[in-house]
Amino acid sequence: MNKYSIILGNLGNTCDRFLSTGYKDQLPKAEMIRQAAAIPGVKGVELVGSWDVTPQNVDEVGGLLAKHGLSCVSIIPDHFSQKRWGRGAFTAKDPAIRAQALEETMAAAEMARKLKCPLINLWPGQDGYDYVLQSDFRSERRWTIEAVKAAAKAYPDIRFSLEYKPKEPRTHSTWARAADTLLVAKETGMPNVGVTIDTGHSMTGGENMAEAAVLLTDFGGKLFHMHFNDNYRSWDDDMIVGSVHFVEFIELLFWLKELDYPGWYSMDQYPYREDGQGALRASVEFLQGIEAMLDAGAMGELRELVKAGDAVRSTNWLRSRIFSGARLS
Amino acid sequence: MNKYSIILGNLGNTCDRFLSTGYKDQLPKAEMIRQAAAIPGVKGVELVGSWDVTPQNVDEVGGLLAKHGLSCVSIIPDHFSQKRWGRGAFTAKDPAIRAQALEETMAAAEMARKLKCPLINLWPGQDGYDYVLQSDFRSERRWTIEAVKAAAKAYPDIRFSLEYKPKEPRTHSTWARAADTLLVAKETGMPNVGVTIDTGHSMTGGENMAEAAVLLTDFGGKLFHMHFNDNYRSWDDDMIVGSVHFVEFIELLFWLKELDYPGWYSMDQYPYREDGQGALRASVEFLQGIEAMLDAGAMGELRELVKAGDAVRSTNWLRSRIFSGARLS
Amino acid sequence: MNKYSIILGNLGNTCDRFLSTGYKDQLPKAEMIRQAAAIPGVKGVELVGSWDVTPQNVDEVGGLLAKHGLSCVSIIPDHFSQKRWGRGAFTAKDPAIRAQALEETMAAAEMARKLKCPLINLWPGQDGYDYVLQSDFRSERRWTIEAVKAAAKAYPDIRFSLEYKPKEPRTHSTWARAADTLLVAKETGMPNVGVTIDTGHSMTGGENMAEAAVLLTDFGGKLFHMHFNDNYRSWDDDMIVGSVHFVEFIELLFWLKELDYPGWYSMDQYPYREDGQGALRASVEFLQGIEAMLDAGAMGELRELVKAGDAVRSTNWLRSRIFSGARLS
Amino acid sequence: MNKYSIILGNLGNTCDRFLSTGYKDQLPKAEMIRQAAAIPGVKGVELVGSWDVTPQNVDEVGGLLAKHGLSCVSIIPDHFSQKRWGRGAFTAKDPAIRAQALEETMAAAEMARKLKCPLINLWPGQDGYDYVLQSDFRSERRWTIEAVKAAAKAYPDIRFSLEYKPKEPRTHSTWARAADTLLVAKETGMPNVGVTIDTGHSMTGGENMAEAAVLLTDFGGKLFHMHFNDNYRSWDDDMIVGSVHFVEFIELLFWLKELDYPGWYSMDQYPYREDGQGALRASVEFLQGIEAMLDAGAMGELRELVKAGDAVRSTNWLRSRIFSGARLS
Repeated sequence: MNKYSIILGNLGNTCDRFLSTGYKDQLPKAEMIRQAAAIPGVKGVELVGSWDVTPQNVDEVGGLLAKHGLSCVSIIPDHFSQKRWGRGAFTAKDPAIRAQALEETMAAAEMARKLKCPLINLWPGQDGYDYVLQSDFRSERRWTIEAVKAAAKAYPDIRFSLEYKPKEPRTHSTWARAADTLLVAKETGMPNVGVTIDTGHSMTGGENMAEAAVLLTDFGGKLFHMHFNDNYRSWDDDMIVGSVHFVEFIELLFWLKELDYPGWYSMDQYPYREDGQGALRASVEFLQGIEAMLDAGAMGELRELVKAGDAVRSTNWLRSRIFSGARLS
Repeated sequence: MNKYSIILGNLGNTCDRFLSTGYKDQLPKAEMIRQAAAIPGVKGVELVGSWDVTPQNVDEVGGLLAKHGLSCVSIIPDHFSQKRWGRGAFTAKDPAIRAQALEETMAAAEMARKLKCPLINLWPGQDGYDYVLQSDFRSERRWTIEAVKAAAKAYPDIRFSLEYKPKEPRTHSTWARAADTLLVAKETGMPNVGVTIDTGHSMTGGENMAEAAVLLTDFGGKLFHMHFNDNYRSWDDDMIVGSVHFVEFIELLFWLKELDYPGWYSMDQYPYREDGQGALRASVEFLQGIEAMLDAGAMGELRELVKAGDAVRSTNWLRSRIFSGARLS
Repeated sequence: MNKYSIILGNLGNTCDRFLSTGYKDQLPKAEMIRQAAAIPGVKGVELVGSWDVTPQNVDEVGGLLAKHGLSCVSIIPDHFSQKRWGRGAFTAKDPAIRAQALEETMAAAEMARKLKCPLINLWPGQDGYDYVLQSDFRSERRWTIEAVKAAAKAYPDIRFSLEYKPKEPRTHSTWARAADTLLVAKETGMPNVGVTIDTGHSMTGGENMAEAAVLLTDFGGKLFHMHFNDNYRSWDDDMIVGSVHFVEFIELLFWLKELDYPGWYSMDQYPYREDGQGALRASVEFLQGIEAMLDAGAMGELRELVKAGDAVRSTNWLRSRIFSGARLS
Repeated sequence: MNKYSIILGNLGNTCDRFLSTGYKDQLPKAEMIRQAAAIPGVKGVELVGSWDVTPQNVDEVGGLLAKHGLSCVSIIPDHFSQKRWGRGAFTAKDPAIRAQALEETMAAAEMARKLKCPLINLWPGQDGYDYVLQSDFRSERRWTIEAVKAAAKAYPDIRFSLEYKPKEPRTHSTWARAADTLLVAKETGMPNVGVTIDTGHSMTGGENMAEAAVLLTDFGGKLFHMHFNDNYRSWDDDMIVGSVHFVEFIELLFWLKELDYPGWYSMDQYPYREDGQGALRASVEFLQGIEAMLDAGAMGELRELVKAGDAVRSTNWLRSRIFSGARLS
């Protein structure tokens, strides 16, 4: 049985650069937690620093989660929503800002311990660059390795998972795709440092999501965490899972099972104009639909198909599953 | 009932710039026609000039089609596979080449009359440009309008359908997307000039295929023909239909039915390394699967959904169709 | 001499979905107008509804512009930054919202008259859709035609210029590219309705900017306005002009001159993390650099090059201009 | 002084899937070698197996090169232009084909020794997959590591450089981008295995070319070779260098110099419709133009700019170099 979770803030308000006050109304935290728990199958949540959890409210949030039977699956330190990170967190040219980025990471690890949360998901969205001749690539990648290593050493009981994304809010992110982020993770030399695949980031980066999962697993057991959403491949649209792609998600879930991926299947969306709970529920149900499809028989058949590599057979198999039942009689 | 056809050459050998002799062996024409007729549901074929049909063999080809009960759905004049077209056909800087491009079109129309084929599908693949400061946009688009108009006037009993494609073999095609090609078609002022949507070209061009079909229909009744294949949106991969996209094809077939599109659903693929017949059959069966899904009840529900515009509801509807039957019980 | 202008708000604060309070501090309007006037060559500004100008402050803004010798080049009605537009303005499913979108347009036209501003630039950013099976394409495009026509009829002394963009904030915009927007403009039947090219939107849409300018001019004299910025072609990054592309801007400015484009060259950027005035000035100076390059001799040479279509010659010409002077001696 | 070379076949005929006999006429090998030597600055050539060099003609080719004073810079074994490689070379499901792929590599290394060529450039273009559920990612990547390792062990005096490319002729290549290919190179554990950056492949893969060069250098000294060409970022158009991009090439050449890259600057184009020699010469002259720009003063200024990270300053610097001389006085 897959373990499903959501990022809590997905239930709240969402904005963009044109409508900065947001498309919806903000919900109280208690209401968001209640809604999360009410989605069938969801057993955990991820919390974003500043937005969802702070050193001040961590105990209160922990109480609310406990009340609704939810685990804290990960904490995502806020390295993106404050003006001070505007020109980078771990890669800021200013060493004082870099030091603050590490402090923010440590503070998140402290909160994680309090919440019995096993994983810090690092997405330093402001790390990268926008223009040609703006980045000192050598120093900047090195700084991220040093910071992650320091945090991982300080909190050996916590896993640090690096979430890559090719772009946005910078036109080029420092951790852009699975392989380059794996190099950073390996370079830290720490067993508690790994990588998060966000399906939308992976697709925007031109990756095959399943291949990224295999790569991270086979080169050091570094697939630590999974974020799910969908998009049109050119931008991180953060849509309902399955609303655009379908066969790729079958391949991904096949491989995650084949790889014995032990982590959470966590929803990470931006339902700008949609009912948040409905959008998250639709995503979970889509993945549950594929999970149900992947019984032992199907797994065996798929194992054969990827070994054979015959596109007509693979396509026929997919079609037989989609148009099942009386519909094709 | 939708009418299904294929482009005959899809059953033969295919090559690319790295393997110019092709990935497979060439099949005799008679064998290709036999294979086409053997695909359940296929009642017509499209023929490419030079490759499939010439003034010399047109009667023989007509006989073979008749023997297997196949209609000639369209003829695609060869404006791309000869060295003389290398720098353009209708847009060639050399007026002698432009004249030949028109002659080739006229010759195809003559063959069409012989084969009782109602449509010439114009895909002047070499028309366009590769480099900045290489094209005189004004003259070149104008030349294509004049040539199409001349052919359409000379053969008022034949429909001329302009197939657009954003790029390849040129980095920029003159007829690139639905709307600009519609402008060309309208500018001819001829009722027998319309536009072909190739689903792969449309997706590569960043279009929503269904929206393109609506646009061409609503601005003058100009949707004349449909080519089907699939790809990853960044290149015309000419893959098995449904092997990448799914929900978009449901939306497209819904709208084609809603628009009373009267034409053929024609497969246009490049199964480089696959069994050609198997690949085409898989595409037809995929579209037949959606056709079966779109019964009167589904059409009514979809009509409501596009009016309501609620993404959660639309997504839920799609999921309920995909994971149907006992599988989710 | 080209006429240069800027969008006033480009000098102010900018935000995105992750840092909604913005990367910089907001500047007072008077300071922004002063900064605009201080950029060498800039003689006009564009004003955005709600953000820059309202029926309440229009006289005050007019006074400030006059004081600094700036023309109001266009007004952009606010069809995007308010919650009520979240699911569309002209294409909202709710007829009451559609009526408000027209009212907002009319109100902008009133302000334009007061400011002696000749042009309303319509960018209904929220018009479009995000998901498959969410849009009733037929009705929605029709609604935009009717609204534009109504405004253009009510204000025959004002030009209405439709600004297209393929996506963002919706994953699919109703007015997506030059050709489809031209179809809308023509369908209104109004001589005072045309189209705006935003260079970044054009590139994101896969267009060649110069070809779009030619198309709009040749099919009805509909190129009304130009917005300038730069990006990496996959997203509307709104960067400094010339920071990514160079040869394409030479081709564009050559054609704008060749077409006798009479309008403004207006900067439209989002200098999230940069000094706003510096970023705008850099863009203007880049375009001035090309303008200086395009003397009568260069125009004649380029005219020959696009007629000849020899990529080696065209490329050599460009190289000779870039690496000019002693550098290659 | 940078060392410039070309891939010999770039001077010959070129074809694509629509015009398989090619856009031009084939030239005799001796004539191509003569033309290569006649391009100012070119001192070396790369040879492609089957096309340019075979065990049968290797001595003859060596003689021709010597006669014209050209070095053999690299040999590219033919892993793509024969029917047997159609479904993969190192990743073929058939072990007999995989064995042949290794033999082909060894044979190329033998030829390299004869020609005193220090480098084998491996581009196994057919390695990868096209469809979802067609690839056994785990085995296939592993097979490429084993084969490369075996060749590198057998020929410790030869460097093996792995050329990545995100797609084409497969929709997904096994060696897709710099970082994943670096992982493969490192996994072989061999000091004589590194990576080739083809600038077009890098841009198509969404990379910043300069960042890729830094990554390969900093994580193990693995940047072995460079191929130059240009494109529009969505496909490997193999165009004249500088015909599309400019500022990115300045950044790349700055970093190659900063990294003390000791290898060749080798042209790799497909001048389908252009004069081959003219197209290659234009590319070399473009790079020489940048090389001349990057004097000690400029290097110092650029070093400061990438440390400062101020986009306005960086852009101003670029503009001052482009519009140099009297033009901006």
